[in-house]
Amino acid sequence: MAYETLDWSVDADGIATLTLNRPDALNAFDLTMAGELEQVFLTDARSDEVRAVVVTGAGRAFCAGMDLSADGNVFGLDESLRPTPADFRQRYDEAPYADGIRDTGGKVTLAIHALPKPVIAAINGPAVGIGATMTLAMDIRLASSKARIGFVFGRLGIVPEACSSWFLPRIVGIQQALEWVYSADILTAEAAHAGRLVRSVHEPDELLPAALDLARSFVVGRSPVALGLAKQLLYRNSAAADPLEAHLSDSLAMFYSSIADGKEGVAAFLEKRAPEFSGRASELPEVFG
Amino acid sequence: MAYETLDWSVDADGIATLTLNRPDALNAFDLTMAGELEQVFLTDARSDEVRAVVVTGAGRAFCAGMDLSADGNVFGLDESLRPTPADFRQRYDEAPYADGIRDTGGKVTLAIHALPKPVIAAINGPAVGIGATMTLAMDIRLASSKARIGFVFGRLGIVPEACSSWFLPRIVGIQQALEWVYSADILTAEAAHAGRLVRSVHEPDELLPAALDLARSFVVGRSPVALGLAKQLLYRNSAAADPLEAHLSDSLAMFYSSIADGKEGVAAFLEKRAPEFSGRASELPEVFG
Amino acid sequence: MAYETLDWSVDADGIATLTLNRPDALNAFDLTMAGELEQVFLTDARSDEVRAVVVTGAGRAFCAGMDLSADGNVFGLDESLRPTPADFRQRYDEAPYADGIRDTGGKVTLAIHALPKPVIAAINGPAVGIGATMTLAMDIRLASSKARIGFVFGRLGIVPEACSSWFLPRIVGIQQALEWVYSADILTAEAAHAGRLVRSVHEPDELLPAALDLARSFVVGRSPVALGLAKQLLYRNSAAADPLEAHLSDSLAMFYSSIADGKEGVAAFLEKRAPEFSGRASELPEVFG
Repeated sequence: MAYETLDWSVDADGIATLTLNRPDALNAFDLTMAGELEQVFLTDARSDEVRAVVVTGAGRAFCAGMDLSADGNVFGLDESLRPTPADFRQRYDEAPYADGIRDTGGKVTLAIHALPKPVIAAINGPAVGIGATMTLAMDIRLASSKARIGFVFGRLGIVPEACSSWFLPRIVGIQQALEWVYSADILTAEAAHAGRLVRSVHEPDELLPAALDLARSFVVGRSPVALGLAKQLLYRNSAAADPLEAHLSDSLAMFYSSIADGKEGVAAFLEKRAPEFSGRASELPEVFG
Repeated sequence: MAYETLDWSVDADGIATLTLNRPDALNAFDLTMAGELEQVFLTDARSDEVRAVVVTGAGRAFCAGMDLSADGNVFGLDESLRPTPADFRQRYDEAPYADGIRDTGGKVTLAIHALPKPVIAAINGPAVGIGATMTLAMDIRLASSKARIGFVFGRLGIVPEACSSWFLPRIVGIQQALEWVYSADILTAEAAHAGRLVRSVHEPDELLPAALDLARSFVVGRSPVALGLAKQLLYRNSAAADPLEAHLSDSLAMFYSSIADGKEGVAAFLEKRAPEFSGRASELPEVFG
Repeated sequence: MAYETLDWSVDADGIATLTLNRPDALNAFDLTMAGELEQVFLTDARSDEVRAVVVTGAGRAFCAGMDLSADGNVFGLDESLRPTPADFRQRYDEAPYADGIRDTGGKVTLAIHALPKPVIAAINGPAVGIGATMTLAMDIRLASSKARIGFVFGRLGIVPEACSSWFLPRIVGIQQALEWVYSADILTAEAAHAGRLVRSVHEPDELLPAALDLARSFVVGRSPVALGLAKQLLYRNSAAADPLEAHLSDSLAMFYSSIADGKEGVAAFLEKRAPEFSGRASELPEVFG
């Protein structure tokens, strides 16, 4: 499938590189890119040939944020709608509200989050607004020394979106999250690293290779089922009220993985050979009640 | 409104300074101070003229904890009441239980938490017991190099209160929270900083100016509506079970902020001028279902 | 009570040392050890004579993980069972599912977690698989410089278990948790410390004394009731949706501790003497609704 605003390629190990590709506009996020990002994570990335996804930007920016240069309604809102929270919750997935109220950044991050495979951000330059918040739904963030990251919403009179209020405090803690959102400042790569938002900082030309190598280290010789279940368990159970919830779901995940790819894994370990797993990420057992 | 135990002032930018003001008693927390702190956060601080609050202590201490020198019932408890959890939950806001069982520190921290504006602690000296836990409901903590912070409850045979078991692990992680509560030791400013409890350590005479400057940087030229919603989103959604909860609430927060102060914010950005926001923190749209 | 795979001793201050004791097998975890670990935390450790527990390994390892050398069914699974999540949730504590599906590591960590006393891991050497995840339910982890810690499940085609998806992100944040689980690498003690998994790193022969000293500092002269309630409050409320939940439970915990050991604690403080608490961890008041 061809995209207007994205580039998508998959290498022999199943590592996909997804490039935000509007370099003349600093990869600004418009409604076309929003739709295409949701689409690529719900279709192409779901193929069992894809084992992990690395996201980066073409040119000198990662993503300069919402494209405010678009004429008119940059957020795609229908101002005639004024739902109460109860109305919106009840009808959030119905057609009238799908495109007139729902945050487009959140539709993208929910699609990223739902992918049961590692997703790594390679932040090569400015990542501002939705350019910053979209990376929070990715599992791990690497940054170029030229990266600049800003949760700048407060300066525009709007709020942090794209489910960032769920993700950001889980990554950096509530105090750091509040300060960055209140300040709405542009952070250097070093400040983002000191605050534990990015996992590591790299020379610009070493960023993408490092991200691809990390992705490769996660998936080569691994069970896609075990990896996909582990991602689901970590996100879901980290937000559960009680460890018993984790016990119920990880017992089932352990049970179903043990009697499938786990048998091959243990056998290969005992025989000191590389395992050959046959499970598929598209067929994860259901482990959550 | 005049207070016995507090000093309250608001500058031209809307930055309020709230000073715990019983310096001869090291600003120890008694039932009068408890009532006044709850009151100031539910009334004065709610005025739209107030944009942010900085809390500090008069004299050499921030707050030396519950005033144990008071004769008799320092916690204001009615020992004839012995509610089960179900009884207490059902009736917690009824008069009989309001003052005889409910933790007075928690009444204060719930009032601080509910204020949809930045609240910054400027911890100028010893902050012990409730003097430490009250700062956890403030969004960001700055400390003087003379600050000493102690979750000392264990030494008195009582438990950490003031909702600190909700706040502290969100700020410093569960391992650090458990160690500090178990040890019940007095931490230096440096130890508190290393453990990520305080955001920065300052020379004593530079503490309050730094806190006021930080508060100012958060609010000048910003939409009070966007700021208030962002605070609610970060705390509420960081504790939500699923990012979909964040998507539903931040979609509405984005919708209502975008069609109001957001229009001015985007216009000002494109016109390279300072925005003039008209929204009011006292009139936040309801975004949680 | 005598154990095949464990050594258990309690000193004069009530500090128990629990030693995983299969040194010839690097203390590998088998079904006997699983049952004995659950047992010791549900019985011996519950005695009021025990104030805190330190867990370590005999010989050069802490625990090398599940004993894969066992013939046949190392996880104790009954493959004829294939429950849906709803089936499993409904019947998880019934006999047919107790031993055929439930993760044995999780039965152990739930028992550790439920103990209302400090539990400290003294990780003296390799801690791999369940050897790593069992320590996550302990409150604080100290490591020898010879410790090596690995969440290696992904290499075997299985998932992280023992409720580790609930505990690990609370200790180290979601980004670090995902990286360690995805990589399935063996971490040095230094890497585990940098990632905030272990609280401190010690010379090998100083590890156990440091852990015992820390445990002692938590409990000598303290109320077992206040300590037990504090542990419950921190874990339960850190996962609650709202600080009001914390207010309700910590109000009751404060009420019941204040009118009991708290009276002695305050009196001793005012009289500048050591307190003599009479409360018992086996008789905690119920504070959660």
